[in-house]
Amino acid sequence: MSGEQRPMRILYQIPGHMTAGPLGAAEIDRRRRLLQDWSGPDTVIDVADSPGGPLSIESTAEEFTCVPPMLAALRGRAQPADAVIVGCFGDPGVAALREVLDCPVIGPFEASLLTGAQLGARVGVVTILDSVIPMLDRLVLSMGLSLRYAGATAIDIPVLELKKDPSEVAKRVAEAGTTLIARRDADVIVLGCMSLAFLGVAEKVAPQVGIPVINPAKCALKAAESVVAQGLLQSRRTYAKPRKEIMTVEEAR
Amino acid sequence: MSGEQRPMRILYQIPGHMTAGPLGAAEIDRRRRLLQDWSGPDTVIDVADSPGGPLSIESTAEEFTCVPPMLAALRGRAQPADAVIVGCFGDPGVAALREVLDCPVIGPFEASLLTGAQLGARVGVVTILDSVIPMLDRLVLSMGLSLRYAGATAIDIPVLELKKDPSEVAKRVAEAGTTLIARRDADVIVLGCMSLAFLGVAEKVAPQVGIPVINPAKCALKAAESVVAQGLLQSRRTYAKPRKEIMTVEEAR
Amino acid sequence: MSGEQRPMRILYQIPGHMTAGPLGAAEIDRRRRLLQDWSGPDTVIDVADSPGGPLSIESTAEEFTCVPPMLAALRGRAQPADAVIVGCFGDPGVAALREVLDCPVIGPFEASLLTGAQLGARVGVVTILDSVIPMLDRLVLSMGLSLRYAGATAIDIPVLELKKDPSEVAKRVAEAGTTLIARRDADVIVLGCMSLAFLGVAEKVAPQVGIPVINPAKCALKAAESVVAQGLLQSRRTYAKPRKEIMTVEEAR
Amino acid sequence: MSGEQRPMRILYQIPGHMTAGPLGAAEIDRRRRLLQDWSGPDTVIDVADSPGGPLSIESTAEEFTCVPPMLAALRGRAQPADAVIVGCFGDPGVAALREVLDCPVIGPFEASLLTGAQLGARVGVVTILDSVIPMLDRLVLSMGLSLRYAGATAIDIPVLELKKDPSEVAKRVAEAGTTLIARRDADVIVLGCMSLAFLGVAEKVAPQVGIPVINPAKCALKAAESVVAQGLLQSRRTYAKPRKEIMTVEEAR
Amino acid sequence: MSGEQRPMRILYQIPGHMTAGPLGAAEIDRRRRLLQDWSGPDTVIDVADSPGGPLSIESTAEEFTCVPPMLAALRGRAQPADAVIVGCFGDPGVAALREVLDCPVIGPFEASLLTGAQLGARVGVVTILDSVIPMLDRLVLSMGLSLRYAGATAIDIPVLELKKDPSEVAKRVAEAGTTLIARRDADVIVLGCMSLAFLGVAEKVAPQVGIPVINPAKCALKAAESVVAQGLLQSRRTYAKPRKEIMTVEEAR
Amino acid sequence: MSGEQRPMRILYQIPGHMTAGPLGAAEIDRRRRLLQDWSGPDTVIDVADSPGGPLSIESTAEEFTCVPPMLAALRGRAQPADAVIVGCFGDPGVAALREVLDCPVIGPFEASLLTGAQLGARVGVVTILDSVIPMLDRLVLSMGLSLRYAGATAIDIPVLELKKDPSEVAKRVAEAGTTLIARRDADVIVLGCMSLAFLGVAEKVAPQVGIPVINPAKCALKAAESVVAQGLLQSRRTYAKPRKEIMTVEEAR
Repeated sequence: MSGEQRPMRILYQIPGHMTAGPLGAAEIDRRRRLLQDWSGPDTVIDVADSPGGPLSIESTAEEFTCVPPMLAALRGRAQPADAVIVGCFGDPGVAALREVLDCPVIGPFEASLLTGAQLGARVGVVTILDSVIPMLDRLVLSMGLSLRYAGATAIDIPVLELKKDPSEVAKRVAEAGTTLIARRDADVIVLGCMSLAFLGVAEKVAPQVGIPVINPAKCALKAAESVVAQGLLQSRRTYAKPRKEIMTVEEAR
Repeated sequence: MSGEQRPMRILYQIPGHMTAGPLGAAEIDRRRRLLQDWSGPDTVIDVADSPGGPLSIESTAEEFTCVPPMLAALRGRAQPADAVIVGCFGDPGVAALREVLDCPVIGPFEASLLTGAQLGARVGVVTILDSVIPMLDRLVLSMGLSLRYAGATAIDIPVLELKKDPSEVAKRVAEAGTTLIARRDADVIVLGCMSLAFLGVAEKVAPQVGIPVINPAKCALKAAESVVAQGLLQSRRTYAKPRKEIMTVEEAR
Repeated sequence: MSGEQRPMRILYQIPGHMTAGPLGAAEIDRRRRLLQDWSGPDTVIDVADSPGGPLSIESTAEEFTCVPPMLAALRGRAQPADAVIVGCFGDPGVAALREVLDCPVIGPFEASLLTGAQLGARVGVVTILDSVIPMLDRLVLSMGLSLRYAGATAIDIPVLELKKDPSEVAKRVAEAGTTLIARRDADVIVLGCMSLAFLGVAEKVAPQVGIPVINPAKCALKAAESVVAQGLLQSRRTYAKPRKEIMTVEEAR
Repeated sequence: MSGEQRPMRILYQIPGHMTAGPLGAAEIDRRRRLLQDWSGPDTVIDVADSPGGPLSIESTAEEFTCVPPMLAALRGRAQPADAVIVGCFGDPGVAALREVLDCPVIGPFEASLLTGAQLGARVGVVTILDSVIPMLDRLVLSMGLSLRYAGATAIDIPVLELKKDPSEVAKRVAEAGTTLIARRDADVIVLGCMSLAFLGVAEKVAPQVGIPVINPAKCALKAAESVVAQGLLQSRRTYAKPRKEIMTVEEAR
Repeated sequence: MSGEQRPMRILYQIPGHMTAGPLGAAEIDRRRRLLQDWSGPDTVIDVADSPGGPLSIESTAEEFTCVPPMLAALRGRAQPADAVIVGCFGDPGVAALREVLDCPVIGPFEASLLTGAQLGARVGVVTILDSVIPMLDRLVLSMGLSLRYAGATAIDIPVLELKKDPSEVAKRVAEAGTTLIARRDADVIVLGCMSLAFLGVAEKVAPQVGIPVINPAKCALKAAESVVAQGLLQSRRTYAKPRKEIMTVEEAR
Repeated sequence: MSGEQRPMRILYQIPGHMTAGPLGAAEIDRRRRLLQDWSGPDTVIDVADSPGGPLSIESTAEEFTCVPPMLAALRGRAQPADAVIVGCFGDPGVAALREVLDCPVIGPFEASLLTGAQLGARVGVVTILDSVIPMLDRLVLSMGLSLRYAGATAIDIPVLELKKDPSEVAKRVAEAGTTLIARRDADVIVLGCMSLAFLGVAEKVAPQVGIPVINPAKCALKAAESVVAQGLLQSRRTYAKPRKEIMTVEEAR
């Protein structure tokens, strides 16, 4: 890329209402800085949250709850993006966003699993709570990737408590990774939560488990930069633009 | 069942805001009467819509948009139900509802595909628009049933226009079914839209295509009656109850 | 259904020659009464056995041995049925009966696995003897449902000894179910033997294992009522009517 | 093998009652001679039919009907065999025979599909009637080989009419093979009927279709010789010997 | 990345002996310049060929033939690389290189298929000759991605003739892509040959076929930059370092 | 086969340079004699090694390294063969040889897995080193046989040390087989190394593990005899003859 090109803008869209929660705007800014650090020199990172979305996403119900606020936040946004990353590991609403938006949309789970598939035979996930595992398992099924999946294990710490004791988090992630290797023949580990992704855990844990540990935030960022650089957009055969703009009765009036 | 048993209450929850749309409350009542006709003698049918939901669901984006209004409608409901049917063929939010609710939740697509699998080797779907087919394909993948699926074909009539010319609808459904047999080896057809289900098309078309044609509304109703009669509830290992009731910042205040 | 409709007749066809065995006609009558209790108000249950069939079915060889006596019993039957349930968990001859008969035919294993797939991600089976497990595994493969199957475990009690110590049976079923959860990630359990189904074990064991336990007799009954109520019949593309009625040389003379 | 070794005896067990049918004992002898011609120098071929079995097998119902007569014929046989080939392309009762017998049991369909998988990516089948195709499809599913299967096509000539016009048969087989290549990407063809196998069709047709054409009788024979020469027997973990010898009430008396 | 960081060096290793062939060193330089144009600002591209390798790769035999020369070229190389791209669409020797090398190794086919899987449901390939299609099909099987694959179609122009008439090439690629959409439901197209990749065809053809067209050279480059930026290396559980350095008798002496 | 027929010549092609290694020509002769003992009376066995190939094959890198020497050895061979067995359990280059040669080519792993699939539900492999297991897993994936595979376990003894302590080898094979049964539900075991195959281990171990143990050398030999006797050749649709004979620049001169 030559210097005079306009920068690539990548929007990391948090599906929850983080600014209104305990972590607040500071955490949004912290994540933006980390993503900016990880990005290529021509990339500009935006991070936004979704007013009306849940505080944390630890169930399928919350996965669904966050999508309309996220869609609303994206429709209301002035600054366009060259790609959008859905900032939740369960990839909520990725297919919906691909229909609606005119730029590529990256799901961190999908990107991580597909990257992991280039690094080893079977990819396992270390996530936060048992309750999200069936959701991840369904995603793998829906991707048609079951033969490359080593399952998921949870460290049993809720999202909002992850920052309390990072070293305990790292310890449990290493233990869970070791379990996935021993019992499920995992060859690659993916950190299964975006809050984990911004704690620097992957880097700490990788030498302990002895296999690659993928940070889904970094991985999604690189996937976004990659598809934008290639000039690619989702297929309109799979993700047709919705025929009608107006979606609710209220909006139709 | 002995006579003195309390009736089984089945709630058919429309994810869109039908009362506010062109079809209105009359259509809700019409569907309730049809479902009541199809039900067993001890079943009482309720039909409700979801204020704030979309007018029709013809994209993945609308699939996601309808779930929070549906969840809100269900949480606000006084009359309990023994089972809930999600009244949209794409089964939007079924996994979410299974987490949140304490009664079985039936998805018409899932119920129809599994019933069809007892009637023939490969089940095909005749739906309304090409835009919903990738959504159905993903559902089949996520169910792990690809080897029993003959794909889907669309009749290219939007939901809200289905009632304009029912005989044209029936003709196109028969043609689409014949195509699925000839080109995809379909052995069973499922009508892929709930509005089709309430038009009496399945009954008309079945003799023409010469293979079973499943009405997803009737099928979902029978699946609901079946699991309630068996006293079954979704597994809490797959559909864990969310730890926290409050889902958005607003609600947390 | 209005009151004047003729009742739905469902025939539970035992593939073995039960009246000639130690359990005798009393057991047939007991099963009929249980099925009648479980059925809808408009259903009439018939139970018949198959003279010449095996005393119990605990091997693939016996699965095959029972089919011609069952076919003969069905052909010789005066009273027609609206649906037939094959009264053996291995679903022996279900495909054959679907070809020959003009009413729906339900296999308890198939019905239970498909119902279980609506309740949880992975369905496991607790059966009687290790010798029948490969048979069940083959059935799952032939249904194309491997990705939803958690395997089977046996309690190691032969069919004809199940009634000797029902509390021991229940204890072992609970243990086997717990093993399937711990080692195979089962989310739903199916009782893998029709004699188990009529012992009231499912109801006892479900609270202990903490996940749904499907009674295959009840489940098959509800599947039969469901397809009859929907007016569905097996696809003649998958289950063609045999061209010729006469099947053996003796019969041809 | 040194000269003084006792010969390998391979029994080709016809599941139908051929001696009582129009083809009669002459056809049994003709098949024996062909198999003997195709066999290795140390192999002795026996061919037997199954009194009480069907005249021809063109449906799943007949597949099941033939198994008990075949089991009875095998139990009543004085001359032991080193391997048994089930002489019907649908492999009826193969799993049952593997449990009961103490020698390897070969199914021609299974042997042909697995041999074909060594010759090309996707194996297709040319069979006699549409009615047997779902049966073959189920077999492929139950073998877990769907990804290597190109489907089946029928020439629409019943078994008992195959000998009337062998050149018409060959012509239709070539056409069906060509169709499987063009529409299903078949790389290898298997003749899907044992009566076809003994007509010399494979040899005639192969040059016309330009891909390998497997004769299932020859292929099953070679599979039998192969496993016997390797000293292999079916796994008793998959095919456990039935616990009890007596199978019906009559026999128990 | 800050400015003072050393650049990322990516080696595009051509498995054939291009400098000795008709295209010569000029083509190597042309490809280097294109890759450099496509790369990020901190990336330095090296391109090397493999003395002793084949002139072009259009068969499985040539896929295998090229690997030892490629391994030798890589072992003899002074300049280290941060990642290696195998410059052939059939990904020859990728697994071998992952064992031997201490940097990530990218296969263009694998990278393209996994990227395509993020853009649409089913990915198809337009390649040069029918003879390479079974090789690609096997790769998809070995990746466990069959459910996301729409098959491949060939334009029937050998590698070394591609440069003769680029507009004919583009025309045939568009036709083949259209065929894959119509007959195989392809949602995304991958150009299935590296020589195609450097002809600028993807960009020309994409608007004509109306779905994303992936250039495997660009895609592999972005995949390489992505894994290097993430600090990831192949799993040593899947790609163990060979125990012994010496590989042939000659080398052992 | 009548006496005057010319014998069937089967070439067992060792991909390594065995004559130059520690085992030397004596081992080649020993293997030839064993294969000759195992062969049918009309079979003549040739054994050849591949000058320039590796001493042993214990990694994917060596799998690839051995193929060109093997191809060269085969092209340089005066004596034609009716079938070629690739003498390495990882089936290196089998697809390449099938393209190039005009006789059937047998891979011992493929032949063993397909034979094992006729003996039991799930086939496991006992191999030498952990490093080869991912290679075997990939082969199974590429064969589309994952649902019939019980995985592999290693005895942790390198190829060249196998002859040092045969009873220790047998002990570890038995232990590994027992582990595969207990932890992976293996129903059949295949010895996963050709050097193991010529040690007489299968015969010793089978009674200990209680399930069939397949010797891949014997099994490949019987597969070769079988396809030759059937007059079959690989499909040219899957294994097209390479268009050009000359493969390297040097050869083109």
